[in-house]
Amino acid sequence: KIDGQRLWDSLMDMAKIGPGVAGGNNRQTLTDEDAEGRALFQSWCEAAGCTMGLDQMGNMFARREGSDPDALPVYVGSHLDTQPTGGKYDGVLGVLGGLEIIRSLNDLGIKTKHPIVVTNFTNEEGTRYAPAMLSSGVFAGIHTQDWAYAREDADGKTFGDELKRIGWRGDEEVGARKMHAFFELHIEQGPILEAERKDIGVVTHGQGLSWTQVTITGKDAHTGSTPMPMRKNAGLGMARVLDLVDEIALSHAPHAVGAAGHIDVYPNSRNVIPGKVVFTVDFRSPELSVIEDMEERLKDGARKICDDMGLSIEFEKVGGFDPVAFDEGCIAAVRAAAERLGYSHRDLISGAGHDACWINRVAPSAMVMCPCVDGLSHNEAEEISPEWAAAGANVLFHAVVETAEI
Amino acid sequence: KIDGQRLWDSLMDMAKIGPGVAGGNNRQTLTDEDAEGRALFQSWCEAAGCTMGLDQMGNMFARREGSDPDALPVYVGSHLDTQPTGGKYDGVLGVLGGLEIIRSLNDLGIKTKHPIVVTNFTNEEGTRYAPAMLSSGVFAGIHTQDWAYAREDADGKTFGDELKRIGWRGDEEVGARKMHAFFELHIEQGPILEAERKDIGVVTHGQGLSWTQVTITGKDAHTGSTPMPMRKNAGLGMARVLDLVDEIALSHAPHAVGAAGHIDVYPNSRNVIPGKVVFTVDFRSPELSVIEDMEERLKDGARKICDDMGLSIEFEKVGGFDPVAFDEGCIAAVRAAAERLGYSHRDLISGAGHDACWINRVAPSAMVMCPCVDGLSHNEAEEISPEWAAAGANVLFHAVVETAEI
Ligand SMILES: NC(=O)NCCC(=O)O
Ligand SMILES: NC(=O)NCCC(=O)O
Repeated sequence: KIDGQRLWDSLMDMAKIGPGVAGGNNRQTLTDEDAEGRALFQSWCEAAGCTMGLDQMGNMFARREGSDPDALPVYVGSHLDTQPTGGKYDGVLGVLGGLEIIRSLNDLGIKTKHPIVVTNFTNEEGTRYAPAMLSSGVFAGIHTQDWAYAREDADGKTFGDELKRIGWRGDEEVGARKMHAFFELHIEQGPILEAERKDIGVVTHGQGLSWTQVTITGKDAHTGSTPMPMRKNAGLGMARVLDLVDEIALSHAPHAVGAAGHIDVYPNSRNVIPGKVVFTVDFRSPELSVIEDMEERLKDGARKICDDMGLSIEFEKVGGFDPVAFDEGCIAAVRAAAERLGYSHRDLISGAGHDACWINRVAPSAMVMCPCVDGLSHNEAEEISPEWAAAGANVLFHAVVETAEI
Repeated sequence: KIDGQRLWDSLMDMAKIGPGVAGGNNRQTLTDEDAEGRALFQSWCEAAGCTMGLDQMGNMFARREGSDPDALPVYVGSHLDTQPTGGKYDGVLGVLGGLEIIRSLNDLGIKTKHPIVVTNFTNEEGTRYAPAMLSSGVFAGIHTQDWAYAREDADGKTFGDELKRIGWRGDEEVGARKMHAFFELHIEQGPILEAERKDIGVVTHGQGLSWTQVTITGKDAHTGSTPMPMRKNAGLGMARVLDLVDEIALSHAPHAVGAAGHIDVYPNSRNVIPGKVVFTVDFRSPELSVIEDMEERLKDGARKICDDMGLSIEFEKVGGFDPVAFDEGCIAAVRAAAERLGYSHRDLISGAGHDACWINRVAPSAMVMCPCVDGLSHNEAEEISPEWAAAGANVLFHAVVETAEI
């Protein structure tokens, strides 16, 4: 078994970097805090005897050698970046859980046949730079590196420039590594495991996602002296589209969700009728046909709303992935590990996107989930218990070691 | 008559300070650009033989002496600050129109009995610091200076600190000056004069305003893994309240308008259900009872919307003034001036708030309006013709000189 206390202590130490305003974290990708978190992780990995690889997307790879020089490594990990008001465990548990496997193998003096590599993927969250899982996406050949480098944050700073600025752009070609398998431990970020009092989620699938950035253009005008019939209120158009998003998602319930988390209003002055609004609609479903239906109904419905109001509207797909079916063999290894360790478990469909969703395209992959309090994530109040973390890491440990062979 | 070309040239010179991105201006209050605009105005006033007074709110008072040392001055002016994406004439025409009166009196060698004072009131627009007309409000005793100093912009910088920083905090006690009368020239910012081909609007009333800042609180949570029934989506609550605002305003049409120009969403991340939204509802009507009805229906209706969605809601009144009836004598002076000069004119109710609305509480006041193209204002594309500007300034000239007596 892994050392639950050591894992927990490391989680708490990492959480000191980029503290939030309400007990969580603000360690967004490619900020100074991200750089600081990476340095701490690297120092821990090196203390555990690993060598650190760094690719041109800033993806980190801490390697523990295996006994067979020809064997492909088993990869394990997640991401260290957080939401602007994020929790301490989202992503971090998967990276430090991977590190804990290395530490435990060291303690036990076990050498695996396959090397084990712990990863930290850059910009999983997708807040500062859309889309989410950007760098595992480049690794898996979904996006080109040039395209990723050109992504801009709200201040117009590019991913490429910021990666260089924080000093974590490596030389290694992205995606050149071949993996024997990939395992990711993550908190559920949803309510099912806690409600059903299960220790472990065996993730068989991931639901698909569609991010559509919507730009509605009306006409800036005075809120006082512009008669109601002359107004082209882009903010009101957005309001009606947001209601439509909810209606569309609910029509597919419980097999879909939908919301807009990001909304920017221009010029955002109390006495100016909004002339432009930009917002991103997030639709998800385990079924591709449902996602496609929601996208289409959004476009048709929103166009109609805007036509009726004299507004113009544009759509841009800024992120998305199809529903994922994880690898049967890896899933079986996770399930067998939970069984062997005596943890209660159930199969799960991941509601969130994860680096494993992209890595599964280039290597057999699966995920382990542990519960989180009230299913709450992407909130500074995100919470898990040390026991839940340890159970997840133990299952990860057994699944990885079985796959890496002793 | 005034010199229309000189007035236009001055308007164009001022517009070079704090240029916008689309032909207009971004010279928001208490920015470096505001300071630069003030310095240019002061240099022009001094070149015209005026002495400049400056009060503790940064209100500027350029004085041309009269022949009677006991006569109270006639005041004339408006504001030089602009919206973030504002036009070149909103406010500026009233200040530089006042300066043009001084210049024309100098040209003609006319000495009035009453001194004439041209004003530039600080923070009329209210974008950076709510409420609008902040400093004419302190002048009129509506707000205390301490309260005004404590207003914060979006970055938490206070009005008092920023006024000091730009170097335009004077020593003079605010509101100590007594006025014989006050006249303000302004573009209409609405479509009536242009549509009816009138040169001049004789402003008899100003409609009232109510700014209610609404804060809706839900719960930040993951957009993917949070089931629809567990969501507390503050953004969706806002959307429904925005629709309600429109419905309420339309129910009083054409005697009311309503919209929200300012909307901030937290944490504003594509994959986080908004946990908090802050927005400002702007309701206006020439009838106080209508404003009160709209405020009440907003509160009741929005509370119901939020209760149904498990959201909490708070209201804060961040600006407002009751409908204004301008001074009969001043109105008559404006109307007589338009008649004498042979301009077509009609009476108007101002749709926007103006410094004159507050000054009218402490001195007999009235306003002159000229048309603007398509009624468009609070937009960089705001436009007027040199002839419209000259007509407005001529009426202002005659009304002011008649009131100041020769
Ligand atoms: N796990 C997680 O929160 N990933 C961010 C990408 C997403 O929005 O699902
Ligand atoms: N004239 C003008 O635009 N004033 C700003 C205050 C208001 O919103 O009416």
